[in-house]
Amino acid sequence: MICDGLGDRANRALRFKTPLQAASTPNMDKLVSRGSAGIMDVISPGIPPGSDTAHLALLGYDPMKYYSGRGPFEALGIGMKVDPGDVALRLNFSTMEKGVITDRRAGRIKDVTQLCEAIDGMKFGDVTVNVQPGTEHRGVAVLRGPDLSSSITDVDPHDTGMKFLKCKHITKEGEKTANIVNMFVKKANMALADHPLNNVRKVTGKKQANAVLPRGAGIMREIPSLKELFDIKAAAVSGISLVKGVCRAAGMNVRIAKGLTGGIDTDLDKKVNLALSSLKTHDLVLMNIKFPDIYGHDGDPKGKKEGVERIDKALAPFLDLDRTVVAVTADHSTPCTVMNHSGDPVPLLITSPDGRRDDIKTFDEIQCAKGAIQSIRGRNLLPLLLDRANKVEKFGA
Amino acid sequence: MICDGLGDRANRALRFKTPLQAASTPNMDKLVSRGSAGIMDVISPGIPPGSDTAHLALLGYDPMKYYSGRGPFEALGIGMKVDPGDVALRLNFSTMEKGVITDRRAGRIKDVTQLCEAIDGMKFGDVTVNVQPGTEHRGVAVLRGPDLSSSITDVDPHDTGMKFLKCKHITKEGEKTANIVNMFVKKANMALADHPLNNVRKVTGKKQANAVLPRGAGIMREIPSLKELFDIKAAAVSGISLVKGVCRAAGMNVRIAKGLTGGIDTDLDKKVNLALSSLKTHDLVLMNIKFPDIYGHDGDPKGKKEGVERIDKALAPFLDLDRTVVAVTADHSTPCTVMNHSGDPVPLLITSPDGRRDDIKTFDEIQCAKGAIQSIRGRNLLPLLLDRANKVEKFGA
Repeated sequence: MICDGLGDRANRALRFKTPLQAASTPNMDKLVSRGSAGIMDVISPGIPPGSDTAHLALLGYDPMKYYSGRGPFEALGIGMKVDPGDVALRLNFSTMEKGVITDRRAGRIKDVTQLCEAIDGMKFGDVTVNVQPGTEHRGVAVLRGPDLSSSITDVDPHDTGMKFLKCKHITKEGEKTANIVNMFVKKANMALADHPLNNVRKVTGKKQANAVLPRGAGIMREIPSLKELFDIKAAAVSGISLVKGVCRAAGMNVRIAKGLTGGIDTDLDKKVNLALSSLKTHDLVLMNIKFPDIYGHDGDPKGKKEGVERIDKALAPFLDLDRTVVAVTADHSTPCTVMNHSGDPVPLLITSPDGRRDDIKTFDEIQCAKGAIQSIRGRNLLPLLLDRANKVEKFGA
Repeated sequence: MICDGLGDRANRALRFKTPLQAASTPNMDKLVSRGSAGIMDVISPGIPPGSDTAHLALLGYDPMKYYSGRGPFEALGIGMKVDPGDVALRLNFSTMEKGVITDRRAGRIKDVTQLCEAIDGMKFGDVTVNVQPGTEHRGVAVLRGPDLSSSITDVDPHDTGMKFLKCKHITKEGEKTANIVNMFVKKANMALADHPLNNVRKVTGKKQANAVLPRGAGIMREIPSLKELFDIKAAAVSGISLVKGVCRAAGMNVRIAKGLTGGIDTDLDKKVNLALSSLKTHDLVLMNIKFPDIYGHDGDPKGKKEGVERIDKALAPFLDLDRTVVAVTADHSTPCTVMNHSGDPVPLLITSPDGRRDDIKTFDEIQCAKGAIQSIRGRNLLPLLLDRANKVEKFGA
């Protein structure tokens, strides 16, 4: 159970408590009372994790080895096929006037399916570029062919009023890929300029979606599945495409249902029920609840406190699982004072039928630091949970 | 704020408390009450750090990668130029009679400037040896040229009544460097034998300074600066040349003033004021206060306790910093019972405007171990402090 961005810092509006400290969380407190607590540096102390590197680590993978950029996980998250060696990039459909980006989101265009179709499947020598739509103005491009590299810069200037940038190689091995990205952008923008949807948008006074802005290139690594590593069948319940992508890269079944949005409006009880039913057919279920992170990015400590209380209520059914290892933690801290991810460690509780019971009775960043699990790294979590279920092979004799 | 050698062990003379436990430290206690506490294994559990490896680690560098010996940091500490690939050695000016070292410090000679001048700039093939004076009987030699190595033994026998040793290579790659050191010692000792200063010393009945004893060879590594690594401007306030050298290697501005001696007689208030004024023009200031270490080496628990109380008083101005991340810790433990560095972890406190507040109210080795920071390694400290100031880039998206 990953409460996204749950960790926080002392907040003046909460009398120098964290939102989790300030929240009333009887269910989490019951869970920790029955088990043991700790804190976790998901990457290493002081390093703010991204959601992608964090989930890789929480699934036992070394992000330094398997992560080269967000692209491949976004691609997997929206259901694209990505093979080892493919390079994937996120892209925005944006508005360009005389070579200058005037709107990075093309007037927050709602559906780019037709536009993606128009620029999908282009070939440049031995490389094919596939494009599929993400949410709203976003898409993902996957480059497939020999000798590709993620060692390239973004085309997206990440700001309006700027010319779109030429893709450049960072190291020599990115040269071919950078050239292909530049050719793709040129040809895609020509196709978009003439696209009927843009003609309609012109007539109705809407901003043109006439420029693609690729960013976040990553090369897909050969990632061994959890099945291969631990011989377990694993599922993920999440509405966030980036999280879904990481879980798919680990070979997990991604389960989702209507009403599970990844937003503040998500149907929490339905999500919990989906996780519980997934437990019947899987050895491991990862559930991500996004909204503590959203309140953190918004700098809203009271919203975050109330959000945590809503999560706590929804967790009640987990109290009845008496043959299951249950862990509650976060992928990173998103302090309301920072309005971004920070390197502060996250709290962790684990209960299991025969797990050690420490004397921690309250689930928060301060109390958990005194628990029997002490301090671990994100990469340690999965082996620790699987060992609680006696599913880790002995090293040695 | 590095209290050098602060960590200690249970001392019978203090009713089995450590000097820090026994000391009255109201200011450190206030600081820890406003923030969080932990303990730190500066290298790793049970490994006694040197002051050089410790400060490297506290500045975020892996000493296993960047440290090959004390020489280069001593050289930088006394203001010598040391380039990557140079090999530096500390040396004593000593008294030799019939090939036997009878005084390793040549009667504690006060000023070796003239002697260094006499042996400075010697050339041996493609290698130049520069020599500059350190404190009292000490100097530093820097070898510059191709294919040098620190894989050599000391000439210094580290005891009197012994013949001075031939420098030997430890691994094959040290062969050239060992030969040059031996040639340098021979030629330097000939120059010293005829030196006017030694003639004067002979007449006045003082011991001859007629033999150099090089030791502690280290090769200068390519060390990225804190500016390159974290984009910060950093300063150090320390009277210890070894600490100054490590800080210079990290690209820090070393600031010092009259009366700041690095000894027990140092002007603490002046040092604190220099650190505070340095904070106005730097992102990070490291202050080293040496004397807990001195009392530890002397095996003086009551002196150490009182020394800690003096430091605590001097720290009062830090209580008024409300927009600053303040950390108090040590580079290593120097237990009075050991009279040398030990591998015991050191206490750590960190306060910052929005930092988590745990329930630790007393700054000592035992209470800090219960704090919210838990246990970290020395290398984790700088990222952790910079993250408190929101200056660490996210890893991932």
